[in-house]
This record gives sequence, structure tokens and C-alpha cells, in this order.
Amino acid sequence: MNQQPVANVSDVTQPCPAELIALAERLVAASGAVIRPYFRAGLQVVDKADLSPVTAADREAELAIRALITQARPQDGIIGEEFGRERHDSPYVWVIDPIDGTKSFITGRPIFATLIALLHEGRPILGVIDQPIIGDRWIGAAGMATHFNGKPAQVRSCGALDHAVLGTTSPDLFDPDDFARFRRVAGVAKLTMYGGDGYAYGLLAAGFADVIIEANLKLYDFAALVPVIEGAGGMITDWQGRALGADSDGRVLAAGDEVAHGAALELLAG
Amino acid sequence: MNQQPVANVSDVTQPCPAELIALAERLVAASGAVIRPYFRAGLQVVDKADLSPVTAADREAELAIRALITQARPQDGIIGEEFGRERHDSPYVWVIDPIDGTKSFITGRPIFATLIALLHEGRPILGVIDQPIIGDRWIGAAGMATHFNGKPAQVRSCGALDHAVLGTTSPDLFDPDDFARFRRVAGVAKLTMYGGDGYAYGLLAAGFADVIIEANLKLYDFAALVPVIEGAGGMITDWQGRALGADSDGRVLAAGDEVAHGAALELLAG
Repeated sequence: MNQQPVANVSDVTQPCPAELIALAERLVAASGAVIRPYFRAGLQVVDKADLSPVTAADREAELAIRALITQARPQDGIIGEEFGRERHDSPYVWVIDPIDGTKSFITGRPIFATLIALLHEGRPILGVIDQPIIGDRWIGAAGMATHFNGKPAQVRSCGALDHAVLGTTSPDLFDPDDFARFRRVAGVAKLTMYGGDGYAYGLLAAGFADVIIEANLKLYDFAALVPVIEGAGGMITDWQGRALGADSDGRVLAAGDEVAHGAALELLAG
Repeated sequence: MNQQPVANVSDVTQPCPAELIALAERLVAASGAVIRPYFRAGLQVVDKADLSPVTAADREAELAIRALITQARPQDGIIGEEFGRERHDSPYVWVIDPIDGTKSFITGRPIFATLIALLHEGRPILGVIDQPIIGDRWIGAAGMATHFNGKPAQVRSCGALDHAVLGTTSPDLFDPDDFARFRRVAGVAKLTMYGGDGYAYGLLAAGFADVIIEANLKLYDFAALVPVIEGAGGMITDWQGRALGADSDGRVLAAGDEVAHGAALELLAG
């Protein structure tokens, strides 16, 4: 398998301007205020294609985020889970998943997250993972250290894959062939932890897990994770070791440790 | 398969005395104070057989709980995950899991829980599920409605298994034959959610999920869940529909809905 060198976002882009980081913080502050009243409030209906609380929270949060972006930066593009694309050929494009981890939200678990990324020419240069119930927030941006709840965050080194705490949201994420590949890695890792969606990548960036492997993710599921992981010293690529961007295939491999990342890549390819 | 009628705890026991409920609340208040400083604090070591923070938190929390029980009720037995059994042939036996959901704890996810149950003649008559980081607390006891964060909690009705949100902590919980049985239920349920341990049963009691199926649980993993689920109007049995107690085999089926419980029982047996 062709393993290209892993590109680190800080190698290939300019530092992210401070006003963009400040805007991203305002966006998740606004979406959190929208989402909080819906959490654990009459969640008896779980269909996404209806008017259930999770749908209302998803849509209202995305509208709040879009309104602030359009006001502050009318020239930028927007890609959102709920309301699609506008001006997505602009140099700067915001990518929004208002509630990542819908199953966690509907089952009352405060480990869903609002994910917001900013792409520059298709590559993520800014990412926020925000958990509005607990108040956990990760901010990653090109040219700066990732911050977790206001303090610098750093991945940990596990040294080898057989010492790694491996995570994935669900075995149901994977197509059968991909699941077989995942299981090869799980067979080597120290233990495997399920659940967590994008929030789990924030915890990896803060040194609480070693490897995450997922598939069939959309751009709005993974774009925000890239600057958060890379700014904490970690690696996040597709299953061939390529940098993630708008053209990725939805397979994601994140690791805090270079050796574990390489070993997982080999097992996913083999 | 021999399906005995499901015994509801409120049918077979006297109401739980108020002073025992008050004591249980003091126990989790004390354990929470012990546990909180260890959460997300230097969790680089994940082995349980060592001096890692999770081990220290587990042991210190159980010691704090045991000390309060021994002071208040020296005649009662105690069974704890960390320090074993004492006086476990007493009529009243406290069953303690100081940190249920160790993997959640070590990966920084605030969905682990302290579980405390009181058995009377081997049957759970009082249970507490306490999440000390978020502050979520469920109290269930014979003769009263389960309370979640101070308010009565009630399961929801999903009406049929194909409308059910199904949960289990991990596919790795099950032996292969049991996993095949679990998958028959998952194939019918509306969606399957992974992760959560004992905390997930609290959320079911509050109406945020419909069915949970697990296996290889220990007494200290499930004893506290029984009064919480039953006091919220739900059902919790083994995979043959029998009431859970000190002699159960570790297979657990909880449901908020009688129809879904029956359908799951049939699929687990068939």
C-alpha cells in the first residue's frame, strides 16, 4: 500500500489568524446555548427525519452558527450537516456538525459534541470540539498548541500498539471488510473502548487514549478533529497515511504515538 | 427455556427504611469526594493491578464507603469489588462497585458510576447509581419511585422491539454463543448504542433507552441496577426472565417496556 508521508497541518499552512479562532469560540458558545435546553428534554421520539428534540436542536444550532458566520465573514463558504452547502468553492469554508454523536444525545449521554472546522483550500486549519453540557472544549489551529478547557493539551506516547487504548464509536460503523481490518488492530491493542464519536478524539488529544479507528465518516465528522489532534502532537490520517481533507474517503486513523500509528496503518493495509 | 414469572422487588419485600436510603446517599457523597480529584489526573497508566490513579480512586472510595457502613451498621455484611467480603451471611449485605466503567474513567469520560446496593436475604432492596463528575444520581428502593437527580424517574414504552433503542457496553462482554444471541436482538432493534456500563441503566430508568443486554456481569455490577430499574417501572431479569440476585449467572436483560422485554427474552433463548 502506498504510504505517503503524513502532512502536519502546521507544516503546510500559515498560522490561523486569531480573529478566526475568536469567531469559532463565539460560534460554539451560541450553539451550546441553543442545544442545552433540548438535552434530556422529552426525547421519547428518536427518528431523525421528524420534529424530535434532537432534530430541532441540530437545526436551530446550525442556523445560529450560520447566521454568525454570514454576519462576520459573508465571503466564506459553509458546509453543514443539516442545511448543506453554500459558497463552498470559497478559499475559506466553515464545516459544521451541530450535534455529532446523535445516539449519545438521544440516550442522554453528555458526550456528544458540536464540531466546527475551517478549511483553507480544502485543508482544515482550525477545529473546535465543544461539549456544551459538561463544558469541555478543545480548540486546535494551525500554528498553535491545541487547548483543552483553556490549557495546552498534549497527546501521550504509548510506545507500541500492544500498549494502546483503542477506541471506535461502534462496530456498526464499518463495512465488513473494513471491520475485519479494524479487528486486526483490536487484536493487538491493550483494550478497546466503544462509543464517543468526535468527543473521543478530543480525549485522545488530551492524552486519555492512544488510537482511534473509524470509517464512513463525513467531512463534517472529521474536519474539526484534524487541527485538534495535530496541534496536540498527534497524527490523524486516512487508512493509507494520507492527510485528511475535503477529498478523503471517510476512513480515519488517529494516534497520539507515531509508532502505534505506523503499526495500525500496517495492520489496516495488510 | 424455563421462563419463570418476573418478580418485581416491590411485590416481594417490605418498603426500604428511610434511614437506609439516607445512609446510601451519604455513602455516594463520600465516595464522590474521593473520586473527583483522580478523574483526568495523570491517567497515563492504565493497568488495574498497579498503583494507577484509577486503582487508587477505586480503593480509596471503597474504603471510605466501608468505613461509613461499619460505623452506621456494624452488623451488616459488605461485598466490594476491591476488598472482598465480610459478614456476607448477614441478613443485610451492602454491595459496592466504587468505579463501575473503569474504561470510561481511564479514557476521561464522565459516564462511569459508583454503584451501591443493599441486599436483604440475597435480593436487592436499595440501589444507587452515582456519577460524581456530572452529578447525576439515581436512587431506587423497594416501596418507592426511583428518583433521578431528586425527581421521580420513569421508563418509557417503545411498544415493540423494532422501535427499541438497544444498548450494551461492548461486544467484547459476551462469550461467542451469547454474542450470537445478542446479535439476534440487535438485528430487530431500531438502533444499537455501545458504552455506558451501569450508568446506561440509569438512563434507561429515566426514559432515554429501551433495552439493555449484557453478560458476564458480577453481583456488584448489577445489584444496584435492580431497584433503580424496577422503581422506575421497568423490568430487569436474567436471560431466562428470572429475578436477579446473589445467585444470578451474570446475564442481564433490562427493558422499559414489557413487550420489548418479552420479545428480547424469546430471541435470547431461541
